[in-house]
Amino acid sequence: MYPELLAHIARYVALTPAEAQVVAEHFTQLAVPRKAYLLEPGQPCPANYFVLQGCLRLFFITEKGAEQTTQFALENWWLTDYSSLLSRQPSLFYIQAVEPTTVAVLDYARQEALLAQVPALERYFRQLLQRTAAASQTRWVYHYGQSLEERYRFFCTAFPGFVQRVPQYMLASYLGCTPEFLSKIRAKGSLGEAGRPPATGRRIS
Amino acid sequence: MYPELLAHIARYVALTPAEAQVVAEHFTQLAVPRKAYLLEPGQPCPANYFVLQGCLRLFFITEKGAEQTTQFALENWWLTDYSSLLSRQPSLFYIQAVEPTTVAVLDYARQEALLAQVPALERYFRQLLQRTAAASQTRWVYHYGQSLEERYRFFCTAFPGFVQRVPQYMLASYLGCTPEFLSKIRAKGSLGEAGRPPATGRRIS
Repeated sequence: MYPELLAHIARYVALTPAEAQVVAEHFTQLAVPRKAYLLEPGQPCPANYFVLQGCLRLFFITEKGAEQTTQFALENWWLTDYSSLLSRQPSLFYIQAVEPTTVAVLDYARQEALLAQVPALERYFRQLLQRTAAASQTRWVYHYGQSLEERYRFFCTAFPGFVQRVPQYMLASYLGCTPEFLSKIRAKGSLGEAGRPPATGRRIS
Repeated sequence: MYPELLAHIARYVALTPAEAQVVAEHFTQLAVPRKAYLLEPGQPCPANYFVLQGCLRLFFITEKGAEQTTQFALENWWLTDYSSLLSRQPSLFYIQAVEPTTVAVLDYARQEALLAQVPALERYFRQLLQRTAAASQTRWVYHYGQSLEERYRFFCTAFPGFVQRVPQYMLASYLGCTPEFLSKIRAKGSLGEAGRPPATGRRIS
């Protein structure tokens, strides 16, 4: 019955028990082994994924052949390739499990049927997507307005614990630097972590 | 009665004439002279803006004192600082008219009242925000996966005419280079614009 998903929806909109039942019936649960893919380039993105447990990442391969991670999704976060999901065109992205991950899957084909039956979810998704838009706008401020070291510090304070869950090369890619550079920053930081500002809890996307 | 706005909404959801009337009553129209501001840092973002005519940009000032443009909005696009709009915290951004601009203003305080009276707009905004999320994900692909020259070429083919409307220093800032570098790319491009791929019409945000 997806208690985590229903609790997340309940933060934004109130569903009747009957509506909650309809929601649950439109999802499937999927266990994804570490490093396995939910999406690979060349296929239309099949679904929107809600992370019940674990961690996903969205990445693409640059012309130089490097993996470029652009988003992570932890517990209670949604992840999809919206462009491919909406257009039904082949995706440019991979969605991969960073660690053993369990997701609630909302298939593209079932989304519209679900929204027609439970219109309150239009409000849920609208509010979620506003937060996504906010995070996206703020991310450019960090990207252009802060040094790599400041971005890394922000990450550590905003998402304590997360940095330990993700391989260093993925985090370096997301932050826009080499693993070697990140390693230097981490070594420096470990000598003086005390007195950091408190966590602010913004989204990593 | 905001015919452009109502036509835009009609692309996504069908409103009754009575609902369209309620929508129109919740907006105010504002003419913004070139270079004037709709938002300045330090104040909570007061509204969401729909461009009826003209062009807006969102930018912030970096620690080094430079203007960093992160979004543009042309006719039929919405622009706001979502983070500040939702949190009611002071904004980090400016919203400025790039040319004489007319906007339909949806005040923060009126948005919830409007959505309560016209729930179909939840679906309108949900779908719009999905497209915004798609554009945001794709933008990171261009940012990390393409050279500055490729980004500029994409811009010219996706938004023909737009490049002429925006001062070069703003466009350079948005693309992430200096005006001098953009100038060199433009000089090079003007010798061989023929044979470019056709426009794809993606959003600039």
